[in-house]
Amino acid sequence: MKRTVFFISDGTAITAETLGHSLITQFPDVSFRQVRLPFVDNEQACREAVNAINLATVRDGAPAIVINTMLDETLCAIIGTSSGVLLDLFATFLRPMEQALGIAHKPRVGQAHGLTNVDKYEGRMDATNYALTHDDGVSVDFKEADLILVGVSRSGKTPTCLYMALHFGVKAANYPLTPEDLDEMRLPHFLRKHKYKLVGLDIEPERLSQIRETRRPGSRYASLRQCRQEVDAARSLLRMEGVPMFVTTHSSIEEISSRVLLQLGLQREMF
Amino acid sequence: MKRTVFFISDGTAITAETLGHSLITQFPDVSFRQVRLPFVDNEQACREAVNAINLATVRDGAPAIVINTMLDETLCAIIGTSSGVLLDLFATFLRPMEQALGIAHKPRVGQAHGLTNVDKYEGRMDATNYALTHDDGVSVDFKEADLILVGVSRSGKTPTCLYMALHFGVKAANYPLTPEDLDEMRLPHFLRKHKYKLVGLDIEPERLSQIRETRRPGSRYASLRQCRQEVDAARSLLRMEGVPMFVTTHSSIEEISSRVLLQLGLQREMF
Repeated sequence: MKRTVFFISDGTAITAETLGHSLITQFPDVSFRQVRLPFVDNEQACREAVNAINLATVRDGAPAIVINTMLDETLCAIIGTSSGVLLDLFATFLRPMEQALGIAHKPRVGQAHGLTNVDKYEGRMDATNYALTHDDGVSVDFKEADLILVGVSRSGKTPTCLYMALHFGVKAANYPLTPEDLDEMRLPHFLRKHKYKLVGLDIEPERLSQIRETRRPGSRYASLRQCRQEVDAARSLLRMEGVPMFVTTHSSIEEISSRVLLQLGLQREMF
Repeated sequence: MKRTVFFISDGTAITAETLGHSLITQFPDVSFRQVRLPFVDNEQACREAVNAINLATVRDGAPAIVINTMLDETLCAIIGTSSGVLLDLFATFLRPMEQALGIAHKPRVGQAHGLTNVDKYEGRMDATNYALTHDDGVSVDFKEADLILVGVSRSGKTPTCLYMALHFGVKAANYPLTPEDLDEMRLPHFLRKHKYKLVGLDIEPERLSQIRETRRPGSRYASLRQCRQEVDAARSLLRMEGVPMFVTTHSSIEEISSRVLLQLGLQREMF
Protein backbone atom coordinates (compact mmCIF):
# COMPACT_ATOMS: atom_id res chain seq x y z
CA MET A 1 0.00 0.00 0.00
CA LYS A 2 1.44 3.35 -1.06
CA ARG A 3 0.30 6.58 0.54
CA THR A 4 1.56 10.14 0.47
CA VAL A 5 2.18 12.14 3.62
CA PHE A 6 2.76 15.89 3.55
CA PHE A 7 4.62 17.86 6.22
CA ILE A 8 3.35 21.43 5.92
CA SER A 9 4.56 24.43 7.88
CA ASP A 10 4.95 28.19 7.71
CA GLY A 11 8.53 27.65 8.95
CA THR A 12 11.13 24.94 8.37
CA ALA A 13 8.61 22.07 8.73
CA ILE A 14 11.00 20.33 11.11
CA THR A 15 8.34 19.98 13.82
CA ALA A 16 5.80 18.67 11.30
CA GLU A 17 8.25 16.13 9.90
CA THR A 18 9.43 15.00 13.35
CA LEU A 19 5.83 14.51 14.47
CA GLY A 20 4.93 12.79 11.20
CA HIS A 21 7.89 10.41 11.33
CA SER A 22 6.92 9.26 14.81
CA LEU A 23 3.41 8.52 13.61
CA ILE A 24 4.38 6.67 10.44
CA THR A 25 6.83 4.41 12.30
CA GLN A 26 3.71 2.80 13.73
CA PHE A 27 2.52 1.71 10.28
CA PRO A 28 5.44 -0.40 8.99
CA ASP A 29 3.29 -2.07 6.29
CA VAL A 30 2.49 1.19 4.54
CA SER A 31 4.96 2.58 2.03
CA PHE A 32 4.85 6.32 2.60
CA ARG A 33 5.93 8.84 0.01
CA GLN A 34 7.04 11.82 2.09
CA VAL A 35 6.77 15.39 0.88
CA ARG A 36 8.09 18.34 2.90
CA LEU A 37 6.46 21.72 2.22
CA PRO A 38 8.27 24.37 4.31
CA PHE A 39 7.67 28.13 4.35
CA VAL A 40 4.01 27.87 3.29
CA ASP A 41 3.17 31.31 4.62
CA ASN A 42 0.89 32.94 2.02
CA GLU A 43 -2.31 32.15 0.14
CA GLN A 44 -0.56 31.35 -3.12
CA ALA A 45 1.72 28.81 -1.43
CA CYS A 46 -1.33 27.30 0.30
CA ARG A 47 -3.18 26.89 -2.97
CA GLU A 48 -0.16 25.17 -4.50
CA ALA A 49 -0.03 22.88 -1.46
CA VAL A 50 -3.73 22.04 -1.90
CA ASN A 51 -3.08 21.15 -5.55
CA ALA A 52 -0.19 18.88 -4.59
CA ILE A 53 -2.31 17.17 -1.94
CA ASN A 54 -5.24 16.65 -4.30
CA LEU A 55 -2.93 15.25 -6.97
CA ALA A 56 -1.41 12.78 -4.49
CA THR A 57 -4.87 11.65 -3.39
CA VAL A 58 -5.90 10.95 -6.99
CA ARG A 59 -2.64 9.15 -7.78
CA ASP A 60 -2.67 7.01 -4.62
CA GLY A 61 -6.41 6.33 -4.94
CA ALA A 62 -6.78 7.29 -1.27
CA PRO A 63 -6.57 10.54 0.71
CA ALA A 64 -3.11 11.91 1.42
CA ILE A 65 -2.16 12.43 5.08
CA VAL A 66 -1.34 16.05 5.93
CA ILE A 67 0.67 16.84 9.06
CA ASN A 68 0.19 20.55 9.53
CA THR A 69 1.99 22.93 11.91
CA MET A 70 0.83 26.20 10.34
CA LEU A 71 -0.54 28.76 12.76
CA ASP A 72 -2.56 31.22 10.65
CA GLU A 73 -6.22 30.15 10.74
CA THR A 74 -7.03 31.67 7.34
CA LEU A 75 -4.19 29.76 5.73
CA CYS A 76 -5.08 26.57 7.62
CA ALA A 77 -8.63 26.91 6.28
CA ILE A 78 -7.28 26.87 2.72
CA ILE A 79 -5.35 23.65 3.43
CA GLY A 80 -8.59 22.35 4.92
CA THR A 81 -10.26 22.52 1.50
CA SER A 82 -7.92 19.82 0.17
CA SER A 83 -8.79 16.14 -0.15
CA GLY A 84 -6.18 15.20 2.46
CA VAL A 85 -6.75 13.95 5.99
CA LEU A 86 -5.53 16.80 8.20
CA LEU A 87 -3.63 16.17 11.43
CA ASP A 88 -3.09 19.60 12.88
CA LEU A 89 -0.64 20.19 15.74
CA PHE A 90 -1.71 23.63 16.91
CA ALA A 91 -5.43 23.23 16.28
CA THR A 92 -5.29 20.09 18.41
CA PHE A 93 -3.04 21.04 21.30
CA LEU A 94 -3.21 24.83 21.70
CA ARG A 95 -6.68 24.78 23.29
CA PRO A 96 -5.74 22.27 26.06
CA MET A 97 -2.51 24.22 26.64
CA GLU A 98 -4.49 27.44 27.00
CA GLN A 99 -6.88 25.78 29.42
CA ALA A 100 -4.03 24.36 31.48
CA LEU A 101 -2.20 27.69 31.59
CA GLY A 102 -5.31 29.82 31.96
CA ILE A 103 -4.20 32.29 29.26
CA ALA A 104 -4.61 32.67 25.50
CA HIS A 105 -1.71 31.97 23.16
CA LYS A 106 0.02 34.71 21.19
CA PRO A 107 0.37 33.52 17.63
CA ARG A 108 4.04 33.62 16.64
CA VAL A 109 5.09 32.12 13.33
CA GLY A 110 8.36 30.30 12.63
CA GLN A 111 9.56 30.36 16.23
CA ALA A 112 10.31 26.71 16.82
CA HIS A 113 13.39 26.51 14.57
CA GLY A 114 14.06 30.15 13.87
CA LEU A 115 16.78 32.40 15.24
CA THR A 116 14.75 33.73 18.16
CA ASN A 117 17.27 33.83 20.98
CA VAL A 118 20.62 35.12 19.74
CA ASP A 119 22.53 34.24 22.92
CA LYS A 120 21.35 30.65 22.94
CA TYR A 121 22.00 30.37 19.22
CA GLU A 122 25.54 31.69 19.68
CA GLY A 123 26.00 29.08 22.40
CA ARG A 124 25.13 26.32 19.95
CA MET A 125 27.50 27.71 17.34
CA ASP A 126 30.30 28.09 19.91
CA ALA A 127 29.71 24.53 21.07
CA THR A 128 29.84 23.27 17.48
CA ASN A 129 33.09 25.09 16.93
CA TYR A 130 34.38 23.65 20.19
CA ALA A 131 33.47 20.11 19.11
CA LEU A 132 35.32 20.62 15.83
CA THR A 133 38.46 21.95 17.49
CA HIS A 134 38.41 19.29 20.23
CA ASP A 135 37.77 16.34 17.96
CA ASP A 136 39.88 13.22 17.70
CA GLY A 137 42.54 14.36 20.15
CA VAL A 138 43.51 17.45 18.07
CA SER A 139 43.45 19.51 21.25
CA VAL A 140 43.66 17.84 24.63
CA ASP A 141 42.99 20.98 26.64
CA PHE A 142 39.65 19.91 28.08
CA LYS A 143 39.22 22.68 30.66
CA GLU A 144 36.10 24.10 29.02
CA ALA A 145 34.60 20.75 28.02
CA ASP A 146 31.16 19.84 29.37
CA LEU A 147 31.94 16.23 28.59
CA ILE A 148 34.60 14.12 26.88
CA LEU A 149 33.77 10.99 24.93
CA VAL A 150 36.52 8.35 24.92
CA GLY A 151 36.77 5.14 22.95
CA VAL A 152 38.72 3.38 20.26
CA SER A 153 38.97 4.87 16.77
CA ARG A 154 35.61 4.69 14.86
CA SER A 155 33.42 3.96 17.87
CA GLY A 156 31.10 6.87 16.96
CA LYS A 157 32.61 9.68 19.02
CA THR A 158 32.77 12.44 16.39
CA PRO A 159 29.20 12.42 15.05
CA THR A 160 27.84 12.05 18.60
CA CYS A 161 29.84 15.08 19.78
CA LEU A 162 28.68 17.15 16.79
CA TYR A 163 25.07 16.16 17.42
CA MET A 164 25.25 17.12 21.11
CA ALA A 165 26.93 20.43 20.28
CA LEU A 166 24.46 21.38 17.54
CA HIS A 167 21.33 20.37 19.42
CA PHE A 168 22.11 20.85 23.08
CA GLY A 169 24.82 23.52 22.93
CA VAL A 170 27.03 21.15 24.88
CA LYS A 171 30.80 21.52 24.60
CA ALA A 172 31.50 17.91 23.73
CA ALA A 173 35.12 16.91 23.19
CA ASN A 174 36.39 13.49 22.26
CA TYR A 175 39.60 11.57 22.56
CA PRO A 176 40.50 8.34 20.76
CA LEU A 177 42.28 5.89 23.04
CA THR A 178 45.61 5.18 21.37
CA PRO A 179 47.49 1.88 21.31
CA GLU A 180 49.93 3.50 23.79
CA ASP A 181 47.13 4.37 26.22
CA LEU A 182 45.83 0.82 25.93
CA ASP A 183 49.27 -0.71 26.39
CA GLU A 184 49.97 1.31 29.51
CA MET A 185 46.48 0.57 30.83
CA ARG A 186 46.04 4.05 32.22
CA LEU A 187 44.30 7.22 31.21
CA PRO A 188 46.62 9.99 30.03
CA HIS A 189 47.00 12.78 32.60
CA PHE A 190 44.94 15.29 30.54
CA LEU A 191 41.95 12.94 30.79
CA ARG A 192 42.56 11.86 34.34
CA LYS A 193 42.15 15.39 35.69
CA HIS A 194 38.70 15.64 34.04
CA LYS A 195 37.62 12.15 34.99
CA TYR A 196 34.12 13.13 36.09
CA LYS A 197 33.42 14.44 32.55
CA LEU A 198 34.39 11.19 30.83
CA VAL A 199 31.99 8.82 29.11
CA GLY A 200 33.17 5.77 27.20
CA LEU A 201 31.72 4.57 23.90
CA ASP A 202 31.87 0.82 23.55
CA ILE A 203 31.23 -1.13 20.34
CA GLU A 204 31.14 -4.78 19.33
CA PRO A 205 34.47 -5.73 17.68
CA GLU A 206 32.68 -7.33 14.69
CA ARG A 207 30.84 -4.10 13.91
CA LEU A 208 33.97 -2.02 14.48
CA SER A 209 35.87 -4.18 12.02
CA GLN A 210 33.13 -3.65 9.38
CA ILE A 211 33.24 0.12 9.87
CA ARG A 212 37.04 0.28 9.69
CA GLU A 213 37.05 -2.02 6.66
CA THR A 214 35.10 0.56 4.60
CA ARG A 215 37.77 3.11 5.53
CA ARG A 216 40.95 1.07 5.14
CA PRO A 217 40.08 -2.20 3.40
CA GLY A 218 42.32 -5.16 4.19
CA SER A 219 44.35 -3.23 6.78
CA ARG A 220 45.59 -4.53 10.11
CA TYR A 221 43.68 -1.55 11.61
CA ALA A 222 40.42 -3.04 10.28
CA SER A 223 41.17 -6.67 11.12
CA LEU A 224 38.84 -8.40 13.56
CA ARG A 225 41.84 -9.47 15.63
CA GLN A 226 43.06 -5.90 16.05
CA CYS A 227 39.52 -4.62 16.79
CA ARG A 228 39.00 -7.34 19.42
CA GLN A 229 42.27 -6.46 21.13
CA GLU A 230 41.55 -2.74 21.22
CA VAL A 231 37.94 -3.12 22.37
CA ASP A 232 38.91 -5.59 25.11
CA ALA A 233 41.69 -3.32 26.33
CA ALA A 234 39.47 -0.21 26.23
CA ARG A 235 36.74 -1.99 28.20
CA SER A 236 39.20 -3.12 30.86
CA LEU A 237 40.79 0.30 31.15
CA LEU A 238 37.50 2.22 31.40
CA ARG A 239 35.99 -0.30 33.79
CA MET A 240 39.08 -0.08 36.01
CA GLU A 241 38.93 3.72 35.97
CA GLY A 242 35.20 3.70 36.75
CA VAL A 243 34.24 5.53 33.56
CA PRO A 244 30.59 4.87 32.53
CA MET A 245 30.25 3.19 29.13
CA PHE A 246 27.53 2.96 26.49
CA VAL A 247 27.36 0.41 23.71
CA THR A 248 26.96 2.11 20.34
CA THR A 249 26.62 -0.99 18.16
CA HIS A 250 22.84 -0.81 17.86
CA SER A 251 22.22 2.77 18.98
CA SER A 252 21.81 5.95 16.97
CA ILE A 253 23.69 9.13 17.80
CA GLU A 254 20.38 10.51 19.10
CA GLU A 255 20.01 7.63 21.56
CA ILE A 256 23.63 7.77 22.69
CA SER A 257 23.46 11.54 23.15
CA SER A 258 20.28 11.28 25.16
CA ARG A 259 21.80 8.62 27.42
CA VAL A 260 25.11 10.47 27.85
CA LEU A 261 23.37 13.71 28.88
CA LEU A 262 21.15 11.78 31.29
CA GLN A 263 24.19 9.99 32.78
CA LEU A 264 26.05 13.26 33.39
CA GLY A 265 22.94 15.07 34.61
CA LEU A 266 23.22 17.71 31.86
CA GLN A 267 19.65 19.00 31.52
CA ARG A 268 20.13 21.24 28.49
CA GLU A 269 17.33 22.54 26.35
CA MET A 270 17.20 20.85 22.98
CA PHE A 271 17.23 22.80 19.72
CA MET B 1 4.15 32.96 35.75
CA LYS B 2 6.32 29.88 36.18
CA ARG B 3 5.19 26.47 34.98
CA THR B 4 6.89 23.13 34.51
CA VAL B 5 6.63 21.16 31.31
CA PHE B 6 7.73 17.53 31.06
CA PHE B 7 8.77 15.77 27.87
CA ILE B 8 8.23 12.07 28.48
CA SER B 9 9.08 9.23 26.15
CA ASP B 10 10.01 5.56 26.06
CA GLY B 11 12.81 6.57 23.65
CA THR B 12 15.04 9.63 23.33
CA ALA B 13 12.17 12.10 23.99
CA ILE B 14 13.28 14.11 20.94
CA THR B 15 9.82 14.01 19.37
CA ALA B 16 8.18 15.00 22.66
CA GLU B 17 10.57 17.90 23.18
CA THR B 18 10.27 19.11 19.55
CA LEU B 19 6.48 19.04 19.81
CA GLY B 20 6.57 20.71 23.22
CA HIS B 21 8.92 23.48 22.12
CA SER B 22 6.62 24.39 19.24
CA LEU B 23 3.70 24.65 21.63
CA ILE B 24 5.47 26.68 24.30
CA THR B 25 6.73 29.24 21.75
CA GLN B 26 3.10 30.34 21.56
CA PHE B 27 3.09 31.34 25.24
CA PRO B 28 5.93 33.87 25.47
CA ASP B 29 4.65 35.28 28.78
CA VAL B 30 5.01 32.01 30.63
CA SER B 31 8.39 31.05 32.06
CA PHE B 32 8.63 27.32 31.46
CA ARG B 33 10.91 25.04 33.43
CA GLN B 34 11.61 22.21 31.02
CA VAL B 35 12.30 18.65 32.13
CA ARG B 36 13.23 15.88 29.70
CA LEU B 37 12.46 12.33 30.83
CA PRO B 38 13.74 9.91 28.17
CA PHE B 39 13.72 6.10 28.24
CA VAL B 40 10.70 5.87 30.55
CA ASP B 41 9.94 2.29 29.51
CA ASN B 42 8.98 0.45 32.69
CA GLU B 43 6.58 0.81 35.62
CA GLN B 44 9.23 1.92 38.07
CA ALA B 45 10.38 4.74 35.75
CA CYS B 46 6.73 5.75 35.25
CA ARG B 47 6.12 5.97 38.98
CA GLU B 48 9.22 8.14 39.38
CA ALA B 49 7.93 10.35 36.57
CA VAL B 50 4.55 10.66 38.31
CA ASN B 51 6.32 11.73 41.51
CA ALA B 52 8.32 14.35 39.65
CA ILE B 53 5.17 15.67 37.95
CA ASN B 54 3.23 15.84 41.22
CA LEU B 55 6.11 17.62 42.94
CA ALA B 56 6.27 20.23 40.17
CA THR B 57 2.53 20.81 40.38
CA VAL B 58 2.77 21.45 44.12
CA ARG B 59 5.79 23.72 43.76
CA ASP B 60 4.32 25.74 40.85
CA GLY B 61 0.90 25.90 42.51
CA ALA B 62 -0.60 24.80 39.18
CA PRO B 63 -0.64 21.57 37.18
CA ALA B 64 2.49 20.69 35.23
CA ILE B 65 2.14 20.21 31.47
CA VAL B 66 3.12 16.74 30.30
CA ILE B 67 3.97 16.15 26.64
CA ASN B 68 3.89 12.39 26.26
CA THR B 69 5.04 10.24 23.35
CA MET B 70 4.99 6.88 25.14
CA LEU B 71 3.22 4.09 23.30
CA ASP B 72 2.46 1.43 25.90
CA GLU B 73 -1.08 1.95 27.16
CA THR B 74 -0.41 0.42 30.57
CA LEU B 75 2.52 2.77 31.14
CA CYS B 76 0.58 5.75 29.77
CA ALA B 77 -2.18 4.93 32.26
CA ILE B 78 0.33 5.24 35.12
CA ILE B 79 1.40 8.69 33.86
CA GLY B 80 -2.33 9.49 33.64
CA THR B 81 -2.62 9.16 37.43
CA SER B 82 -0.38 12.21 37.91
CA SER B 83 -1.60 15.73 38.62
CA GLY B 84 -0.24 16.97 35.26
CA VAL B 85 -2.21 18.02 32.20
CA LEU B 86 -1.46 15.32 29.64
CA LEU B 87 -0.95 16.14 25.97
CA ASP B 88 -0.48 12.79 24.33
CA LEU B 89 0.87 12.48 20.78
CA PHE B 90 -0.04 8.89 19.98
CA ALA B 91 -3.32 8.76 21.89
CA THR B 92 -4.39 11.85 19.93
CA PHE B 93 -3.21 11.15 16.42
CA LEU B 94 -2.96 7.36 16.00
CA ARG B 95 -6.73 6.86 15.73
CA PRO B 96 -7.24 9.41 12.91
CA MET B 97 -4.16 7.94 11.14
CA GLU B 98 -5.66 4.44 11.43
CA GLN B 99 -8.97 5.68 10.06
CA ALA B 100 -7.26 7.44 7.15
CA LEU B 101 -5.14 4.41 6.31
CA GLY B 102 -7.83 1.84 7.03
CA ILE B 103 -5.49 -0.36 9.09
CA ALA B 104 -4.51 -0.71 12.73
CA HIS B 105 -1.09 0.46 13.89
CA LYS B 106 1.59 -1.96 15.05
CA PRO B 107 3.04 -0.62 18.30
CA ARG B 108 6.78 -0.19 17.90
CA VAL B 109 8.72 1.52 20.65
CA GLY B 110 11.71 3.81 20.20
CA GLN B 111 11.57 3.83 16.40
CA ALA B 112 11.52 7.55 15.68
CA HIS B 113 15.12 8.22 16.67
CA GLY B 114 16.52 4.74 16.99
CA LEU B 115 18.87 2.87 14.68
CA THR B 116 16.14 1.18 12.65
CA ASN B 117 17.47 1.37 9.11
CA VAL B 118 21.19 0.61 9.05
CA ASP B 119 21.71 1.67 5.41
CA LYS B 120 20.10 5.06 5.92
CA TYR B 121 22.00 5.53 9.16
CA GLU B 122 25.29 4.71 7.44
CA GLY B 123 24.38 7.27 4.81
CA ARG B 124 24.05 9.96 7.49
CA MET B 125 27.37 8.98 9.05
CA ASP B 126 29.10 8.93 5.64
CA ALA B 127 27.63 12.34 4.85
CA THR B 128 28.86 13.70 8.19
CA ASN B 129 32.31 12.39 7.51
CA TYR B 130 32.13 13.92 4.03
CA ALA B 131 31.16 17.30 5.46
CA LEU B 132 34.13 17.16 7.85
CA THR B 133 36.62 16.24 5.13
CA HIS B 134 35.21 18.80 2.67
CA ASP B 135 34.99 21.69 5.09
CA ASP B 136 36.59 25.07 4.64
CA GLY B 137 38.35 24.27 1.38
CA VAL B 138 40.39 21.42 2.91
CA SER B 139 39.54 19.26 -0.09
CA VAL B 140 38.28 20.87 -3.29
CA ASP B 141 37.41 17.62 -5.02
CA PHE B 142 33.65 18.14 -5.12
CA LYS B 143 32.75 15.27 -7.46
CA GLU B 144 30.65 13.46 -4.85
CA ALA B 145 29.13 16.59 -3.28
CA ASP B 146 25.34 16.97 -3.30
CA LEU B 147 25.82 20.67 -2.76
CA ILE B 148 28.57 23.19 -2.04
CA LEU B 149 28.06 26.24 0.16
CA VAL B 150 30.23 29.22 -0.75
CA GLY B 151 30.67 32.50 1.08
CA VAL B 152 33.19 34.58 2.96
CA SER B 153 34.87 33.27 6.09
CA ARG B 154 32.42 33.00 9.07
CA SER B 155 29.22 33.31 7.07
CA GLY B 156 27.82 30.14 8.65
CA LYS B 157 28.89 27.51 6.12
CA THR B 158 30.39 24.88 8.45
CA PRO B 159 27.55 24.41 10.97
CA THR B 160 24.98 24.48 8.16
CA CYS B 161 26.85 21.74 6.27
CA LEU B 162 27.14 19.62 9.42
CA TYR B 163 23.44 20.06 10.13
CA MET B 164 22.43 19.03 6.61
CA ALA B 165 24.75 16.02 6.69
CA LEU B 166 23.59 14.80 10.11
CA HIS B 167 19.88 15.28 9.48
CA PHE B 168 19.36 14.83 5.78
CA GLY B 169 22.30 12.59 4.87
CA VAL B 170 23.30 15.20 2.32
CA LYS B 171 26.95 15.39 1.25
CA ALA B 172 27.38 19.07 1.91
CA ALA B 173 30.78 20.61 1.13
CA ASN B 174 31.79 24.21 1.66
CA TYR B 175 34.37 26.55 0.28
CA PRO B 176 35.38 29.93 1.72
CA LEU B 177 35.84 32.55 -0.99
CA THR B 178 39.45 33.77 -0.60
CA PRO B 179 40.72 37.31 -1.13
CA GLU B 180 42.30 35.99 -4.37
CA ASP B 181 38.97 34.68 -5.66
CA LEU B 182 37.36 38.00 -4.83
CA ASP B 183 40.17 40.00 -6.44
CA GLU B 184 39.97 38.02 -9.64
CA MET B 185 36.18 38.21 -9.61
CA ARG B 186 35.79 34.68 -10.86
CA LEU B 187 35.00 31.30 -9.41
CA PRO B 188 37.96 28.93 -9.18
CA HIS B 189 37.79 26.14 -11.79
CA PHE B 190 37.00 23.43 -9.19
CA LEU B 191 33.81 25.31 -8.31
CA ARG B 192 32.95 26.38 -11.82
CA LYS B 193 32.59 22.79 -13.00
CA HIS B 194 30.03 22.09 -10.23
CA LYS B 195 28.19 25.37 -10.65
CA TYR B 196 24.71 23.84 -10.45
CA LYS B 197 25.52 22.54 -6.95
CA LEU B 198 26.56 25.94 -5.58
CA VAL B 199 24.60 28.00 -3.05
CA GLY B 200 25.92 31.25 -1.63
CA LEU B 201 25.61 32.28 2.01
CA ASP B 202 25.32 36.04 2.39
CA ILE B 203 25.58 37.97 5.67
CA GLU B 204 25.32 41.60 6.73
CA PRO B 205 28.85 43.07 7.12
CA GLU B 206 28.00 44.48 10.60
CA ARG B 207 27.06 41.02 11.87
CA LEU B 208 30.05 39.41 10.19
CA SER B 209 32.36 41.89 11.87
CA GLN B 210 30.84 41.04 15.29
CA ILE B 211 31.32 37.31 14.70
CA ARG B 212 34.91 37.70 13.52
CA GLU B 213 35.65 40.07 16.41
CA THR B 214 34.98 37.28 18.95
CA ARG B 215 37.48 35.11 17.05
CA ARG B 216 40.26 37.61 16.36
CA PRO B 217 39.63 40.78 18.38
CA GLY B 218 40.97 44.00 16.89
CA SER B 219 42.21 42.32 13.72
CA ARG B 220 41.96 43.70 10.21
CA TYR B 221 40.10 40.44 9.41
CA ALA B 222 37.34 41.47 11.84
CA SER B 223 37.20 45.16 10.89
CA LEU B 224 33.94 46.45 9.49
CA ARG B 225 35.81 47.91 6.53
CA GLN B 226 37.32 44.53 5.59
CA CYS B 227 33.99 42.72 6.13
CA ARG B 228 32.18 45.25 3.92
CA GLN B 229 34.72 44.82 1.13
CA GLU B 230 34.56 41.03 1.22
CA VAL B 231 30.77 40.86 1.43
CA ASP B 232 30.34 43.36 -1.42
CA ALA B 233 32.80 41.49 -3.60
CA ALA B 234 31.25 38.10 -2.81
CA ARG B 235 27.76 39.41 -3.61
CA SER B 236 28.93 40.80 -6.97
CA LEU B 237 30.77 37.63 -7.88
CA LEU B 238 27.94 35.25 -6.99
CA ARG B 239 25.33 37.48 -8.64
CA MET B 240 27.42 37.63 -11.80
CA GLU B 241 27.83 33.85 -11.81
CA GLY B 242 24.12 33.32 -11.23
CA VAL B 243 24.64 31.46 -7.93
CA PRO B 244 21.54 31.61 -5.66
CA MET B 245 22.17 33.31 -2.31
CA PHE B 246 20.57 33.22 1.13
CA VAL B 247 21.04 35.79 3.86
CA THR B 248 22.12 34.15 7.11
CA THR B 249 22.13 37.24 9.35
CA HIS B 250 18.76 36.53 10.97
CA SER B 251 18.33 32.87 10.04
CA SER B 252 19.12 29.72 11.98
CA ILE B 253 21.02 26.81 10.44
CA GLU B 254 17.70 24.94 10.39
CA GLU B 255 16.07 27.66 8.30
CA ILE B 256 19.02 28.01 5.92
CA SER B 257 19.25 24.23 5.48
CA SER B 258 15.55 24.00 4.74
CA ARG B 259 15.77 26.79 2.15
CA VAL B 260 18.93 25.41 0.51
CA LEU B 261 17.42 21.93 0.10
CA LEU B 262 14.24 23.46 -1.32
CA GLN B 263 16.26 25.63 -3.73
CA LEU B 264 18.24 22.65 -5.05
CA GLY B 265 15.19 20.37 -5.14
CA LEU B 266 16.82 17.89 -2.74
CA GLN B 267 13.82 16.11 -1.19
CA ARG B 268 15.66 14.04 1.41
CA GLU B 269 14.03 12.40 4.37
CA MET B 270 14.87 14.16 7.62
CA PHE B 271 16.35 12.31 10.59
